[in-house]
Amino acid sequence: MKAYALLGGPKENWPEHLDQIMNSAKANGDLIIGVDRGSILLTELGVIPDLAIGDFDSLKKDELGQIENQVLDIRYSNPIKDLTDSELMIRTAFLEYHVSELRIFGATGGRIDHFLVNLFMLQNKQIIKYAPKVQLIDRQNTIQYFLPDDNRVRKINTYPYFGVASLGTVKNLTIKGAKYSLTSFSSKYPKVFASNEFREGRDKFELSFDRGLVCVIFSKDINRFYSI
Amino acid sequence: MKAYALLGGPKENWPEHLDQIMNSAKANGDLIIGVDRGSILLTELGVIPDLAIGDFDSLKKDELGQIENQVLDIRYSNPIKDLTDSELMIRTAFLEYHVSELRIFGATGGRIDHFLVNLFMLQNKQIIKYAPKVQLIDRQNTIQYFLPDDNRVRKINTYPYFGVASLGTVKNLTIKGAKYSLTSFSSKYPKVFASNEFREGRDKFELSFDRGLVCVIFSKDINRFYSI
Repeated sequence: MKAYALLGGPKENWPEHLDQIMNSAKANGDLIIGVDRGSILLTELGVIPDLAIGDFDSLKKDELGQIENQVLDIRYSNPIKDLTDSELMIRTAFLEYHVSELRIFGATGGRIDHFLVNLFMLQNKQIIKYAPKVQLIDRQNTIQYFLPDDNRVRKINTYPYFGVASLGTVKNLTIKGAKYSLTSFSSKYPKVFASNEFREGRDKFELSFDRGLVCVIFSKDINRFYSI
Repeated sequence: MKAYALLGGPKENWPEHLDQIMNSAKANGDLIIGVDRGSILLTELGVIPDLAIGDFDSLKKDELGQIENQVLDIRYSNPIKDLTDSELMIRTAFLEYHVSELRIFGATGGRIDHFLVNLFMLQNKQIIKYAPKVQLIDRQNTIQYFLPDDNRVRKINTYPYFGVASLGTVKNLTIKGAKYSLTSFSSKYPKVFASNEFREGRDKFELSFDRGLVCVIFSKDINRFYSI
């Protein structure tokens, strides 16, 4: 079973046809999760979440009532807590529901402090081991996470570009077999190597490092952004 | 003299009335800078940049011709280089034009690898000393940077929230006099403390730390994001 989670980020950043993605996941028996305002946004897409998590402070009373009536598993998070709502969601999905992977939508756009919390949350020691099974997906980007080891990164055909970002300390970061190579880069600060590409005719590259958490950001241009 | 720079990020993320902001800055004698595609986007706003920087690979031939005809100071960056176009822009603005502060637009949204490059660029040792004079501004957020010391962070009235983000190693990060306090937080990894607020009736809080680069992200909600 896979899991599909929706957070409260702006609809403008959602991938196209998120309603179809969520409805077919539901029909497929995958786990549908709403985090805080994401719970009500899912019902607006015609999908009742299987699991809702949050302190729900962004919901009106009647919206919370609707969630409480319709959703089977509701977890009320503690505002003073070790884990954020999204971190609690990741732990619950893997530890209790034993999902094989987790796709997160609504994590980008809007308030940048919120986005950065989502980008960095997998560094939390309680959930970092799940990082390779988690993706953040929006209209233009898919972010995958990697732990130290020799990793093969596979092409996603809809994305012509990728960037490699170390989130904090990284040791011996090496990129082989892509358009631009990198050899044994080490740093105590986050660093982003943007605008790389897969080599023509190749559908993977090798990514290795000895320490740290690294994400690969697959991306595409959307021309409409440049027209008024 | 202040500087106003436009990068190539999507228009959807620009602050409202960027045309008025740029036109009145130009009329005021401030320095207008276009970085790569930002140069041509400025001309579309009716403003000819004083300075254009980039390898201009995102421009069509006639667009580059237009920039070369109209802009007095053009810097062609080297694709294989120590500094990115934006880093070169920051160094040029402060070192050669001696501007007192720099407001950067078009740095957010769209491709996340591009945004992260912009967010983290002020960690580059060649330009980090200018960080406190630089702001990234978009439709919903203004990001200010702080170096170690006792800083007073002043409220920007249009933003009800702020987050504090350490970009890499930070030591003894302390927030005093805001709604949520923080005492001597240290970490080797980036960490974001989101959704803080100024105390009622107060227009500043104290931010101190011994090591690292910290940014404060002022933000607001935009309701239109939540309507279909």
